[in-house]
Amino acid sequence: MKRAQAKPILLSLERASATGLVEQIVAGLAHLIAQGTLRSGEQLPSVRRFGTDQGVGTSTVVEAYERLVARGLVAARRGAGFFIAYQSPQSPPTPVFNPPAPVIDSAWLLSEMFADERVPIKAGCGWLPGKWLDDDGLHQAERRIIRAPGAQQVGYGHPYGYAPLRLTISQFLAQWSLEVPIDQILTTHGATQALDLIIRTMVKRGDTVLIDDPSYCNLIAMLRLADVNVIGIPRTPTGIDTNALENLARLHKPVLYFTTSVLHNPTGTSYTPACAMRVLQAAERHGFWVVEDDIFRELGQPNDPMLAALDGLQRVIYVGSFSKTVAPSLRLGFIACQRELARQLVHTKMVLTLTNSEITERLVHSALTEGHHRRHVENLAAALLHAQARVNARLLEAGLTPFATPRGGMFSWAKFDRTELSARDIADLARRDGIWLAPGDFFHLTPPDQPWFRFNVAYSDVPELVAFFRGL
Amino acid sequence: MKRAQAKPILLSLERASATGLVEQIVAGLAHLIAQGTLRSGEQLPSVRRFGTDQGVGTSTVVEAYERLVARGLVAARRGAGFFIAYQSPQSPPTPVFNPPAPVIDSAWLLSEMFADERVPIKAGCGWLPGKWLDDDGLHQAERRIIRAPGAQQVGYGHPYGYAPLRLTISQFLAQWSLEVPIDQILTTHGATQALDLIIRTMVKRGDTVLIDDPSYCNLIAMLRLADVNVIGIPRTPTGIDTNALENLARLHKPVLYFTTSVLHNPTGTSYTPACAMRVLQAAERHGFWVVEDDIFRELGQPNDPMLAALDGLQRVIYVGSFSKTVAPSLRLGFIACQRELARQLVHTKMVLTLTNSEITERLVHSALTEGHHRRHVENLAAALLHAQARVNARLLEAGLTPFATPRGGMFSWAKFDRTELSARDIADLARRDGIWLAPGDFFHLTPPDQPWFRFNVAYSDVPELVAFFRGL
Repeated sequence: MKRAQAKPILLSLERASATGLVEQIVAGLAHLIAQGTLRSGEQLPSVRRFGTDQGVGTSTVVEAYERLVARGLVAARRGAGFFIAYQSPQSPPTPVFNPPAPVIDSAWLLSEMFADERVPIKAGCGWLPGKWLDDDGLHQAERRIIRAPGAQQVGYGHPYGYAPLRLTISQFLAQWSLEVPIDQILTTHGATQALDLIIRTMVKRGDTVLIDDPSYCNLIAMLRLADVNVIGIPRTPTGIDTNALENLARLHKPVLYFTTSVLHNPTGTSYTPACAMRVLQAAERHGFWVVEDDIFRELGQPNDPMLAALDGLQRVIYVGSFSKTVAPSLRLGFIACQRELARQLVHTKMVLTLTNSEITERLVHSALTEGHHRRHVENLAAALLHAQARVNARLLEAGLTPFATPRGGMFSWAKFDRTELSARDIADLARRDGIWLAPGDFFHLTPPDQPWFRFNVAYSDVPELVAFFRGL
Repeated sequence: MKRAQAKPILLSLERASATGLVEQIVAGLAHLIAQGTLRSGEQLPSVRRFGTDQGVGTSTVVEAYERLVARGLVAARRGAGFFIAYQSPQSPPTPVFNPPAPVIDSAWLLSEMFADERVPIKAGCGWLPGKWLDDDGLHQAERRIIRAPGAQQVGYGHPYGYAPLRLTISQFLAQWSLEVPIDQILTTHGATQALDLIIRTMVKRGDTVLIDDPSYCNLIAMLRLADVNVIGIPRTPTGIDTNALENLARLHKPVLYFTTSVLHNPTGTSYTPACAMRVLQAAERHGFWVVEDDIFRELGQPNDPMLAALDGLQRVIYVGSFSKTVAPSLRLGFIACQRELARQLVHTKMVLTLTNSEITERLVHSALTEGHHRRHVENLAAALLHAQARVNARLLEAGLTPFATPRGGMFSWAKFDRTELSARDIADLARRDGIWLAPGDFFHLTPPDQPWFRFNVAYSDVPELVAFFRGL
């Protein structure tokens, strides 16, 4: 039986157009497919035939056909030619994720909200608006890595991370008088993965771990996933309740204490030097390690204490990040710790996820060493301090009581006294008004008596917030 | 007391030079610091003063000083000016990692070897040489994302992953007659993280899990870390021993079976359709999920069976990646599975590491849709098939017996009969000869009787390999 010939197709191509011939052919054929003139399974003319019919070169046709293959509109069968791909009857998937009906529950809500473009006022979110970040720096960094030889980019990165970046991190830490050679520094997929690697390397199920209370919501969730016994140490406006730490450590023999010395999430508070000293004394006395989760260091004050520097990494494992000042999307965190522990953590990292993306490590390195990073951070810190003051004034006006007056950073932590409603109830009502609130029980081990909220000062300086709370 | 004046510095700058003035100042001052003319703690001239002395604008000086700050050579003190930074007496860290004395142990050796540039013949490694990968495609993709507006790059990515990339993945799977909407697809930090997310979401400690034996060494290590009961199903040249699967599943009631249908690592073997069918029947009969770890699909044969397509994602969780064809450094894997399970996996991902880097997701998307990806994969697959044939001939010549004749892909699996030595002993000897071998016990649950090795065909086509084994 003679095979059916592919039917001839004639597109009108414009040679003088700014749009290239390849793109015109792609668009023309895609249009014919969309309107059903070309149907699923139908064969396209051979490359040579189509080229002759259209008066274009075969390489132009190949390029166009391949792009249609890449877009899933055309299928190539070896030796047989090109065919219109099977068009799935399903409606084309929309690029914006549309969750069924949001269920408010801690990390999960936060993760869905990451994607939800429908909430105009992101008062509860955990990141800065794009325009506050270093767009230009990132673009400049991208332009630079393009000039780097490609062969360096297609391999796996170094298990510890890109060495020049680790050197830069070492210099960054030296500013705080913490001297760390680069074989005690490893990069991670954001500070969040750093916390998980520490847990999975150092904690056995059933061990006791201390955390700040309230605390970073992902830390609570990942400790629950690891099936460990978690005890909270109350935060105070000047750090943590060191008496509670002393008593609870004596009682429970913890393995680790995860804490944040500077601009703590969610309370925005920082340790005094005396608080830092007492935490390290308790660690020494009761034999636990301190994990200093220090991702806001760049935005703090110069005299804020750094546990790792005070202790010289004897009992402290330091976790840092540049996500808050360069770009969270780069997903670059790091750990600085004792040499042998670093080896073990790298082992866990390699087993669970292999290396980081060296391309993003190069981007971060480039952004940090370009020269204008420090100025960017200074401007950002100043803008956040101003926003803090304005937002705290608004919160008072709205009937909320701030926990403290943070010395910078992204967050303000405040409670709303005048209500019978729970923080979850209030967050639910706010969502209907287009305001995303982060209720306190996301950050507490057990729901607090009063409705607390974490406010992102970069998003909360809006009159709608006052109006909403006044209307409750 | 009058403050000491900063001593004047005069550099000879060349205005006609191709090197910019900023860079000349940076280099000049760095040189003065290195040779000790400028010492730790010494103040630099004010920006204005230095500018006047050198006859350059203040913005040039600021830029140069800032770069020196970024490089850790100069410290800026608010309101006081710029000072030569404290130069740590430690010798400068070398950028190449230098492990003390390599200890050969499975994933850990593999992870150290990632970084070790001292082994010239990487016969045991798990990735392709940079020149076999798609350098040009990656560079082109980089050039493209630079043109994208920056604000889209500095935010966190979508929890499920960059939507256009998920659409491309959905189209990729449709080529194998697997129709998956994008809300059943999530991206991961490489296929390795995908495996870990599945374990942490679906397996409780003490559960039984089946794997191929031999198997991907990281999978073995991460299952041990998760404290689960692991049982191996023997690989055969045509897939797996389905009778063993049937018996062991009946006996042990496993939760999951991790297997690779196409170009299995380390054996290089692929399922026959009949083997695929029997695995799915066993899954149905004994109620376990099948995790199809399918990272080599693009390099396989068109008629290789895909479990996920046969089963329609009823009992199969599909794990894929483009690391082997685009660039491993991008660290981009994905999972396709039932909708509710996808939600749970995204939840675990968000808790443990938050989103992927959207920048790398855009790079992969760009590389895949550019149009020449398919041709690159075809060339790569053909090159690997040729290398397979040549390496298998060499292995026979060297006295090794290949397990099968793989139908493509990166790996050949072979045993060396004529010896009293263990595979580890042989690997140790080879390392001294500059050859990195991957001994079989990295991939087996219990060390095999005979010395098996995994060979990377892209690195093993060298006479030194024959010479080494002949000399044993």
